[in-house]
Amino acid sequence: MPIFTNHTQSCKMKKTFTLAFLVLSAAAIAQQKTISGFTEASAVKELQAEQAFDASLSAPRIGATIKELSAIPHNIGSPGSKAVAEKILQKYKSYGLDAHIETYTVLFPTPKTRLLELTGPTKYSALLKEPALNEDATSNQTGQLPTYNAWSADGDVTAPLVFVNYGLPDDYETLAKLGVDVKGKIVIAKYGRSWRGIKPKVAYEHGAVGCIIYSDPKDDGYTAGDVYPKGAYKNEYGVQRGSVMDMVIYPGDPLTPGVGATKDAKRLDRKDAPTILKIPVLPISYHDAQPLLAALDGIVAPQPWQGGLPITYHLGAGKATVHLKMEFSWDMVPAYDVIAKIKGTKWPDEWVMRGNHHDAWVNGASDPISGQSAMLDEAKALGDLLKTGWKPKRSIVYCSWDGEEPGLLGSTEYVEGHDKELQEKAVVYINSDGNGRGFLGAGGSQALEPFMDEITQNVNDPQTNVSIYDRKKAHELVSAASVKDKKEILDRKGGKLESLGSGSDYSSFLQHLGIPTLDLGFGGEDGGGEYHSIYDSFDDYRRFKDSSFNYGVALSKTAGHAVMRMANAELLPFDFRNLQTTVSKYVTELGELVDKTRENTAMDNQLIKSNDFALAADPTQHEKLPVAKDSVPKLDFTALKTAVDTLKKVADKLAASWTTASQAKGNNDKLNKLLYHAEQQLLSADGLPRRPWYKHTIYAPGFYTGYGVKTLPGIREAIEQRNWKEAQDQIGVVANSINNLVGYLSAGI
Amino acid sequence: MPIFTNHTQSCKMKKTFTLAFLVLSAAAIAQQKTISGFTEASAVKELQAEQAFDASLSAPRIGATIKELSAIPHNIGSPGSKAVAEKILQKYKSYGLDAHIETYTVLFPTPKTRLLELTGPTKYSALLKEPALNEDATSNQTGQLPTYNAWSADGDVTAPLVFVNYGLPDDYETLAKLGVDVKGKIVIAKYGRSWRGIKPKVAYEHGAVGCIIYSDPKDDGYTAGDVYPKGAYKNEYGVQRGSVMDMVIYPGDPLTPGVGATKDAKRLDRKDAPTILKIPVLPISYHDAQPLLAALDGIVAPQPWQGGLPITYHLGAGKATVHLKMEFSWDMVPAYDVIAKIKGTKWPDEWVMRGNHHDAWVNGASDPISGQSAMLDEAKALGDLLKTGWKPKRSIVYCSWDGEEPGLLGSTEYVEGHDKELQEKAVVYINSDGNGRGFLGAGGSQALEPFMDEITQNVNDPQTNVSIYDRKKAHELVSAASVKDKKEILDRKGGKLESLGSGSDYSSFLQHLGIPTLDLGFGGEDGGGEYHSIYDSFDDYRRFKDSSFNYGVALSKTAGHAVMRMANAELLPFDFRNLQTTVSKYVTELGELVDKTRENTAMDNQLIKSNDFALAADPTQHEKLPVAKDSVPKLDFTALKTAVDTLKKVADKLAASWTTASQAKGNNDKLNKLLYHAEQQLLSADGLPRRPWYKHTIYAPGFYTGYGVKTLPGIREAIEQRNWKEAQDQIGVVANSINNLVGYLSAGI
Repeated sequence: MPIFTNHTQSCKMKKTFTLAFLVLSAAAIAQQKTISGFTEASAVKELQAEQAFDASLSAPRIGATIKELSAIPHNIGSPGSKAVAEKILQKYKSYGLDAHIETYTVLFPTPKTRLLELTGPTKYSALLKEPALNEDATSNQTGQLPTYNAWSADGDVTAPLVFVNYGLPDDYETLAKLGVDVKGKIVIAKYGRSWRGIKPKVAYEHGAVGCIIYSDPKDDGYTAGDVYPKGAYKNEYGVQRGSVMDMVIYPGDPLTPGVGATKDAKRLDRKDAPTILKIPVLPISYHDAQPLLAALDGIVAPQPWQGGLPITYHLGAGKATVHLKMEFSWDMVPAYDVIAKIKGTKWPDEWVMRGNHHDAWVNGASDPISGQSAMLDEAKALGDLLKTGWKPKRSIVYCSWDGEEPGLLGSTEYVEGHDKELQEKAVVYINSDGNGRGFLGAGGSQALEPFMDEITQNVNDPQTNVSIYDRKKAHELVSAASVKDKKEILDRKGGKLESLGSGSDYSSFLQHLGIPTLDLGFGGEDGGGEYHSIYDSFDDYRRFKDSSFNYGVALSKTAGHAVMRMANAELLPFDFRNLQTTVSKYVTELGELVDKTRENTAMDNQLIKSNDFALAADPTQHEKLPVAKDSVPKLDFTALKTAVDTLKKVADKLAASWTTASQAKGNNDKLNKLLYHAEQQLLSADGLPRRPWYKHTIYAPGFYTGYGVKTLPGIREAIEQRNWKEAQDQIGVVANSINNLVGYLSAGI
Repeated sequence: MPIFTNHTQSCKMKKTFTLAFLVLSAAAIAQQKTISGFTEASAVKELQAEQAFDASLSAPRIGATIKELSAIPHNIGSPGSKAVAEKILQKYKSYGLDAHIETYTVLFPTPKTRLLELTGPTKYSALLKEPALNEDATSNQTGQLPTYNAWSADGDVTAPLVFVNYGLPDDYETLAKLGVDVKGKIVIAKYGRSWRGIKPKVAYEHGAVGCIIYSDPKDDGYTAGDVYPKGAYKNEYGVQRGSVMDMVIYPGDPLTPGVGATKDAKRLDRKDAPTILKIPVLPISYHDAQPLLAALDGIVAPQPWQGGLPITYHLGAGKATVHLKMEFSWDMVPAYDVIAKIKGTKWPDEWVMRGNHHDAWVNGASDPISGQSAMLDEAKALGDLLKTGWKPKRSIVYCSWDGEEPGLLGSTEYVEGHDKELQEKAVVYINSDGNGRGFLGAGGSQALEPFMDEITQNVNDPQTNVSIYDRKKAHELVSAASVKDKKEILDRKGGKLESLGSGSDYSSFLQHLGIPTLDLGFGGEDGGGEYHSIYDSFDDYRRFKDSSFNYGVALSKTAGHAVMRMANAELLPFDFRNLQTTVSKYVTELGELVDKTRENTAMDNQLIKSNDFALAADPTQHEKLPVAKDSVPKLDFTALKTAVDTLKKVADKLAASWTTASQAKGNNDKLNKLLYHAEQQLLSADGLPRRPWYKHTIYAPGFYTGYGVKTLPGIREAIEQRNWKEAQDQIGVVANSINNLVGYLSAGI
């Protein structure tokens, strides 16, 4: 059954399936005539189809779509959202796709009251308003959602204010060391360094009664660059809206975990929904933050906590008090997922899925309309191909999701509503979101790395006219911090897919169902501060993001080719050697993490015992001294290492027996199913500790980082939390999941 | 002749010379009865004398002296300076020391005209003035020097302004990459990261016609902490005065390099003095800097260049122009070095020297009066001892230097005026300068490390009541970045003396004459922004520096014990094993530096060749691409390594033959001379390339860092400048100097 082998072998086998995983020069790629998983004849057809597909794409049309779909505010539940969904539906239909809207009914809070005032020692009433700008045509629209964080609790609190830096667990350790307690206080945290929802969650865990989140100018304001409208960065009034749902427990509608939020789905009582915050939360601008921060007294905040405002940041917890009042309408609203299909000719029940959300916090030209528009252009180009008689072997499903912004609502409810069907039929889910200028960011299931390399080596970068593969590699090489890192990149065969955490619609496909996933988008040369503000507008986008919309086309090509190749491959292009290499690296990392933690703990305990912390401390600062921690036991990684070693043998065997498979002529149905169902073997029935919705044993969003991925999360987070018993148990869980995969693949060879 | 051995041997030898170099617990130290280089009997006497010495010291008196000597402005050439010198003279005399003032005549510029204005596109006239504050009693005095940089050129220039970050060579490389040229422009640089004099020098080398230096609030203003008078950090009007003399060529009077600036010394023409700057320079506050920086257009400065002002920093070189006019009175002024002696009984022509400057930029409560006052208390305590009949075996010379601030004038002229005598007689020079609260900072000749360990293990820290040795080690352990670093500290036998660059009066003793040197002072818990401003006042000092003046006493004890032990040791406590270990480490470092440079160059050249820099660059930014550099040849370190290895053998032999020396009973005159003259063997006749005044082959201030030390400077700077031929030559020069030391010590054993 093996599909893939090395380049030497593929040269011998050109007549049947071909392979181009290994390092190919740009020149070689320009001559590409072989595609992994395709016969030579079908590869020729495929490349012709891709050429026609590319010719159908249009940067000006993508630009026009961005303008059209970002013309009005269109958050979930708004008239704009419905209008945008319908426009998208019409577009799919006009392209010739079989499209419909699938509607879920989800909870969505919008603010009735937002009040923040400094009540002492001086007075200040926060503006909580982003002004209209002449330079930004849509910034004066009515119907734009006010600045707020969805899933804040209702609340009316007055309490002393405490500055908590980024509001992460480490920051609270520092506060404790400095003798500052947030119990009964309102905290003010900077945006950044974690997903925003972590901040009020951790504040609540520490006893805070309210949470203010602000954008510090050092992070995405004037310190980062010229501010809008002169430049792309956040002006003093800009506010980042956003969800603070406790999404690391589960995403989607808080009332319907695990099931699709159909009209009559069984729902939790709102008060029992664990992902809704327990305290009021409000995001503010740095204009509004400055008087609050300037009023703080108490200890001067540690040097790394100081931000970009022209003040000395203090910790507070003293005389400065604030009044925060938040009241919400907790409405049930429709989520309009627009689903458009092209039926496959050979394997109609194998679905190649492609998605991007359409809802925005406000106008959302960049997030998500830039990605949505590129995706629509793909659909249009496929529609054009259909008109020429081209047809995919597998079914293709385009999904324009609603309600991503408040918590991946549309995609999660769809996935939960179709879970069995998707686990049976979905070959891959290919996601995108906002798109910009620069380098390809690509994450997902590492078994698809060689597949993506072939694609990216064959799509050119709009600015340099080399392949996006070569440009990204150049960027990695030049950015790498050390010669050692550069050498590793040079020696690496092919590119890497980043492991995925959360923050976009792939989460439920990958982490709940174990469907092979890709997440694609360009960026790195399009920095700015418009994110989730009214200034994420077409005017901003055309000036500071992808002005020519050529990266829209590059995304259409990259994702479109991936869709087409997955839809037409005779043998599905999964190479589990790449998965194995990746997991093996993570296992090594974890061993080093345990050793390092042990070493640090032993050293700290030694210095505690010898009184060095006490002697080194500034006696005038009254810092609390560290206390000894339990020493770190040896963890036994043997079962996991053995599993990973065995996976290597199986993955190698799969690759080496490519010849056999290539002679199997035609009927690869069973093998293909085996391949795309393989990732599901990595799920654990119980899911992760304390969050059973997350079932993937390799990837999850971090419990205390949010978007950021934790790989081998069960083990890694147990180690980070010094829960050695659980870490050892989870080593067994992950070893089991890998052994499952090994057994499953072995049975299929 | 060997004096030192290990602890086991010393136990056997207690009757004669004793030794306590190796790690001793605090408890053992409290019982200390042995001192290296002392017989048991003389050690008992010494410890008794030190006890009496300590009892004479007084924190309140040190505080009173600080208040007294900082009561009026007393820069060199001012009436205040004369008054302070005379007060000090009277104090020495009143203590019973043989004191006089030795006067040199030196050039010293003070401003007649200081004008800085933004001339376009908007207008702003810089205030150039630090306001008086109610909270600071001396801040309203007349006679305070205005804010300026001494040794700026006269000049009247109007030109576009360019922001150059810290104004270091690397910053200009970045500017060149970004296509910004400073030729014919005025630059504005931040204070910090180098000695200030480097900034206008490098600006001039790049063709700038003027240089403004400002204090960014991120470095020592509100970002660092509460500003004065609420806190210790720089308020918006505070300005750092200071010398910009090109001191890395030679310090001291610019007109009399190498010779004492006596009245009739042969003098250079001022225009020929190479250490006077060629362009006008002016330091300003961040209040004055903000309008200038805000007016800059052009490219946004790189992220790491952004400072703490609430603006986006741009590079300029466009429409923003400034007018800078500086005119100086170039006066010949007297430098009053106050010299106070206690004649030695046994070896009167061996001098133990101790110094601290007395001149300040303004009132200088911290810099230098805190150190000066501690030193005066030492002299007082020695005077008290003299009255009891105690007498030192060697002569003791206390030196209160004038004119340190403009360029180590008083000390350098004294050293140059007495060079032969000092090279013959000076056993050691022990320096201090401003003193604060915290941990002992100690630098100097590493052969004195064991000597300093014995002293610091026997002086208690005022705040924790453990030895200053233990507290410093605790601080090092807790601050060390990695477990590896912590282990190294734990495994290390004894403390380290930092290698000395420049920035205080030890420079000419060590680097011009090769006299063994120590530089001592406390700090680390006394941060602030008062440096060289009118706010370096008694009011500031008592609030934010050493409030109890107990660290003044700790400095008196530390330096005083060093003076007393050096004056009374029968065998001088130099251990060249420590020097050898240090130099050996530097040689290893340089080998690694060459290898790393070679590796980086090869990698950069490879990426240049493969076009990766071009592909990685943002095409809209028009950055210049790097060009290939010459590849790095192998340097042959054999001669140097052999010399260092041989030094190990000789140093070990010297230590091991301690028994023999200990039986030599009494006459160690020849050996002592050998020991304290040894460091002079490390001088090279030609001095460093392009700066022959600096003759020490192991230590020098960096040509492009200023205060910061470059160790093995001839080799290291040649490598940094990619001058491989010179690097190889300098390896020979350093090897020679070490071989000289080896031969010299061998001959003496």
